[in-house]
Amino acid sequence: MTPLQTLGERGLIQRIQQNTPAPKQPSTLRGIGDDAAVFTLNDQIIGLLTTDLLIEGIHFDLTYVPLRHLGFKAVAVNVSDIAAMNGLPTQLTVGLGLSSRFTVEAVDELYAGIQAACEAYNVDLVGGDTTTSRSGLVIAISVVGQVAQNKITYRNTAKPNDVICVTGDLGAAYLGLQLLEREKQEYLANPDMQPALSEERAYLIGRQLRPDARTDMVHELRDLDVLPTAMIDLSDGLASDLLHLCTQSGTGAVIFDENIPIDDQTYLAAEEFKISPLTAALNGGEDYELLFTVPPQMFEKLKNHSRITAIGYMTNTPDQIMLATKAGQQTPIQAQGWSQ
Amino acid sequence: MTPLQTLGERGLIQRIQQNTPAPKQPSTLRGIGDDAAVFTLNDQIIGLLTTDLLIEGIHFDLTYVPLRHLGFKAVAVNVSDIAAMNGLPTQLTVGLGLSSRFTVEAVDELYAGIQAACEAYNVDLVGGDTTTSRSGLVIAISVVGQVAQNKITYRNTAKPNDVICVTGDLGAAYLGLQLLEREKQEYLANPDMQPALSEERAYLIGRQLRPDARTDMVHELRDLDVLPTAMIDLSDGLASDLLHLCTQSGTGAVIFDENIPIDDQTYLAAEEFKISPLTAALNGGEDYELLFTVPPQMFEKLKNHSRITAIGYMTNTPDQIMLATKAGQQTPIQAQGWSQ
Repeated sequence: MTPLQTLGERGLIQRIQQNTPAPKQPSTLRGIGDDAAVFTLNDQIIGLLTTDLLIEGIHFDLTYVPLRHLGFKAVAVNVSDIAAMNGLPTQLTVGLGLSSRFTVEAVDELYAGIQAACEAYNVDLVGGDTTTSRSGLVIAISVVGQVAQNKITYRNTAKPNDVICVTGDLGAAYLGLQLLEREKQEYLANPDMQPALSEERAYLIGRQLRPDARTDMVHELRDLDVLPTAMIDLSDGLASDLLHLCTQSGTGAVIFDENIPIDDQTYLAAEEFKISPLTAALNGGEDYELLFTVPPQMFEKLKNHSRITAIGYMTNTPDQIMLATKAGQQTPIQAQGWSQ
Repeated sequence: MTPLQTLGERGLIQRIQQNTPAPKQPSTLRGIGDDAAVFTLNDQIIGLLTTDLLIEGIHFDLTYVPLRHLGFKAVAVNVSDIAAMNGLPTQLTVGLGLSSRFTVEAVDELYAGIQAACEAYNVDLVGGDTTTSRSGLVIAISVVGQVAQNKITYRNTAKPNDVICVTGDLGAAYLGLQLLEREKQEYLANPDMQPALSEERAYLIGRQLRPDARTDMVHELRDLDVLPTAMIDLSDGLASDLLHLCTQSGTGAVIFDENIPIDDQTYLAAEEFKISPLTAALNGGEDYELLFTVPPQMFEKLKNHSRITAIGYMTNTPDQIMLATKAGQQTPIQAQGWSQ
């Protein structure tokens, strides 16, 4: 008997992928291995399907996560997978496992967050399953989405010399988590304390508790007539997710440390926690921004966009990701990311 | 604060339904309230989406449920929802929460069952999510399916005088559960005992551990050119699921106790457990057979089918389900069903 730990989560997923037979349904266009599965809808439109499982004590800590934010986030992380295929969500189901300590009001709060996200991302809550859970809260969300056949973006189609772009800024969600965890420890040590979370930290905490899926960028890319060659959402951290793009595309990458977009608040909090802001950006995870590649000539259309940053370029050295400093020095980087 | 128990699962689902806004996406044809959600695929074909959450200690007991059977069942119960819409499954995602006590071999067994079901029902495993669980095993499955636009069967379209039909036989899964539970208690009392489950009980235990979704009946109904006016799958028990059909269709029903199909083994085991076989059939649940209605003239095509039984007819007395005896006496029946 082999304990699961010897394989690790990545190893387990690889094992499941390898043991899964190739799709047989004519309507299945892409199975396991991208942000969402892909199936035929009609001549112009492609269907997308993604699912995520959030478990109390693993993915969230109800001592500091408000249920309304949790409901919103549970939807957003799935919608983010649809956005990573350059698609928009249409239908959503919610499976909910509830322990008996939950109140009706608590369920109402959770659903208020789910519905706020459905509103924000223009997706219909169409079904689900509600059941008892012996221990904590379990949230299973599946989302169906759509994308025009000629607009879908996979992970395995980046090309050498493509410009690597990210939306927004990175590392903030990770530092938000550090702030919340510290607050929790202080509260446990002294339950009478007043919350010390200052207003200035609201951005970081918001990025952790209530991340946004970048469907706005899907719209903007359409409006700018920019079609990425490949795209993924940043859930595990830039290093890990960029490695996915590279491995699946058969490319390597060079990224410039100076170019990685990091918010001022992230810098400040990183200093406080004695964490390198670059490490937070590379390995922190949960930013739910989009990472995509475009041919150099197409980047012209994006270079003045305030929320899109070019951070490097794809190379033809498979799987090798180099971090380049201002001084021109290049060091290979390892993906760490989350293992949940 | 209101404890969840005061509302009950049914009450909670109603509350969620009432709080859910009407669908806004043009592609959403039907939201919450049927066996599966319904969305546009193309001019001829309609898409179906359903999800189920299975939690250890609530839906299954790993002391007597083999993981391979559990994997199969987890797929079958979802496929059954697609069959209830007169559709066939095409794509499936699996979300898995695993506690650290699981071994790699155990996960392989579970997936072997999932893959056997994918093979049996001709559906592609296209994605999912694997994560740690703090306590027990959590399985979240979502299935996408298809049905021709002119063949879909909803719950709310049965008409008075329609003949009520069921496939297969009822109550066996419930008695299989009783056998397994008794075995477990005896084993806990005396761990050295030899299993006393005789070969003859294999049918009942099989119906509990590894139920089949009735996609075969979907094919047969097509071949016979029979289109039900309404259909639902029997997961909660005949009384409860028939009440769903009636409530949503604005009808009542009369069913004949003599006509309810019950296997000989179910009769024998019911006697042993001092349970009324009729009660097992009406309230036992988990049979995953199909319950459907057809206009009287269409029933002609089905009357010689060995696996389809007419058990009664729809009336125009809303929500009233009467059980009629041979002697002609009618008594109202209450839906009990499972509350999980």
